[in-house]
Amino acid sequence: MPSYLITGCSRGLGLEMASQLSKTSGNLIFATARGAPTAALQKLIDGSAGRVIYVQLDAESPESIKSAVAQVEKHLNGKGLDILINNAGVMPFSMGGVATMDNLSSTFSTNVLSVHLVTSAFIPLLKKGTEKKVFNVSTTLGSIAHAATYRQTPAPAYAVTKAALNMLTVQYSLGYEDQGFTFIALSPGWLKTDLGGEGADLPVADGAEATLKIVHEKGKEDTGKFFNIKKAGWGNATGLNYYDGKEVSW
Amino acid sequence: MPSYLITGCSRGLGLEMASQLSKTSGNLIFATARGAPTAALQKLIDGSAGRVIYVQLDAESPESIKSAVAQVEKHLNGKGLDILINNAGVMPFSMGGVATMDNLSSTFSTNVLSVHLVTSAFIPLLKKGTEKKVFNVSTTLGSIAHAATYRQTPAPAYAVTKAALNMLTVQYSLGYEDQGFTFIALSPGWLKTDLGGEGADLPVADGAEATLKIVHEKGKEDTGKFFNIKKAGWGNATGLNYYDGKEVSW
Repeated sequence: MPSYLITGCSRGLGLEMASQLSKTSGNLIFATARGAPTAALQKLIDGSAGRVIYVQLDAESPESIKSAVAQVEKHLNGKGLDILINNAGVMPFSMGGVATMDNLSSTFSTNVLSVHLVTSAFIPLLKKGTEKKVFNVSTTLGSIAHAATYRQTPAPAYAVTKAALNMLTVQYSLGYEDQGFTFIALSPGWLKTDLGGEGADLPVADGAEATLKIVHEKGKEDTGKFFNIKKAGWGNATGLNYYDGKEVSW
Repeated sequence: MPSYLITGCSRGLGLEMASQLSKTSGNLIFATARGAPTAALQKLIDGSAGRVIYVQLDAESPESIKSAVAQVEKHLNGKGLDILINNAGVMPFSMGGVATMDNLSSTFSTNVLSVHLVTSAFIPLLKKGTEKKVFNVSTTLGSIAHAATYRQTPAPAYAVTKAALNMLTVQYSLGYEDQGFTFIALSPGWLKTDLGGEGADLPVADGAEATLKIVHEKGKEDTGKFFNIKKAGWGNATGLNYYDGKEVSW
């Protein structure tokens, strides 16, 4: 059974993915959080029969990442890390419009630089893994082609940085495809989390299930692509809010 | 005749665009540079019969931008600024591959944050202008769809930040299209400049001429789009290195 490292497991999608993966005997999940485990993460860890391991990780700090790699490496005891899910991210708003955006650099650091720092640091362990798969949690709001669809969402820094994350995903894919790696960007759907809000489309459990389906089903032949989740009952191909499981235009 | 502000006029494409525009009587060109004018920029200014105005501008510094806006506003004496060309940018290499990239944040600051800071600061003067056009100098290397074409170019930070710049362009376009603005991303071609190197396709004069053709011909109906230059003799539609004047896929 594979080993996973998931960033941003204090709450929301990261916590739920770790929880769902922990149901399967043999899975090993490194669940990272910037601070001490939240009550919810601690509860998951305590009930996981050792399958969920807390790893302190500030994904914007090279020193913190270095410590996290050492901890994971020690725990794996000679094995590699199989799957990395870069899930941590933020969606700040600029209610006065794009010209008032005052959070572009900090959002870039959290949503893009962190993914680069974490991914590059875990490449050696991933090389020793059996799957060599990296999934970057992006969003359809990061699709430049479909930006007009989301014109009412006042989150320009989120849009700009997720477009950058998509290109980062492709740069890694091109750099490592000849070594058997898979790098995929995915949109987990609009989920009822702290980030997505109560008015969102789907319960977080549905988004996590659909995201993990991508994680398990996609492989080398899909490297460098950007996938939407698939969720029955949400139509297909008639609009971006539909969860059709297909590739999203850049 | 319109007024222009062009960032990054110390050399290369910015200097050449300022030079070509200065040939037309009545044009007013604010040519910005981070430091004192280079010898080439000073020569252009001295021979421009007052058409080229030097403006000190560190595009990553809000204070410097504020001073530049005040200087331009004073010079315009009640008129607006017609056209803004965000040209300044850098293309650092990561010769060891994407995982060794150590310049992502600084490149983002120079290629994306600066464009946001400059554009937002000049919006009030642009609103008073007759054209309300903003052109962001991007690159086909910032096309995620075509990233594989450029896999041999070891400039991942350039690719990631130019993809982000493309999304920033679209965010501004969406935010200001109902006020008559035009925001366009363009690829000026691979030019024989300090950035492009001696092995590039085109002399800088050709790239500047083709870029200014986009600046002059594109308007509101094209806002939010991403254009390649058109250059006769470079084929069409068969590959991205061809300068066909068409929209570039995101």
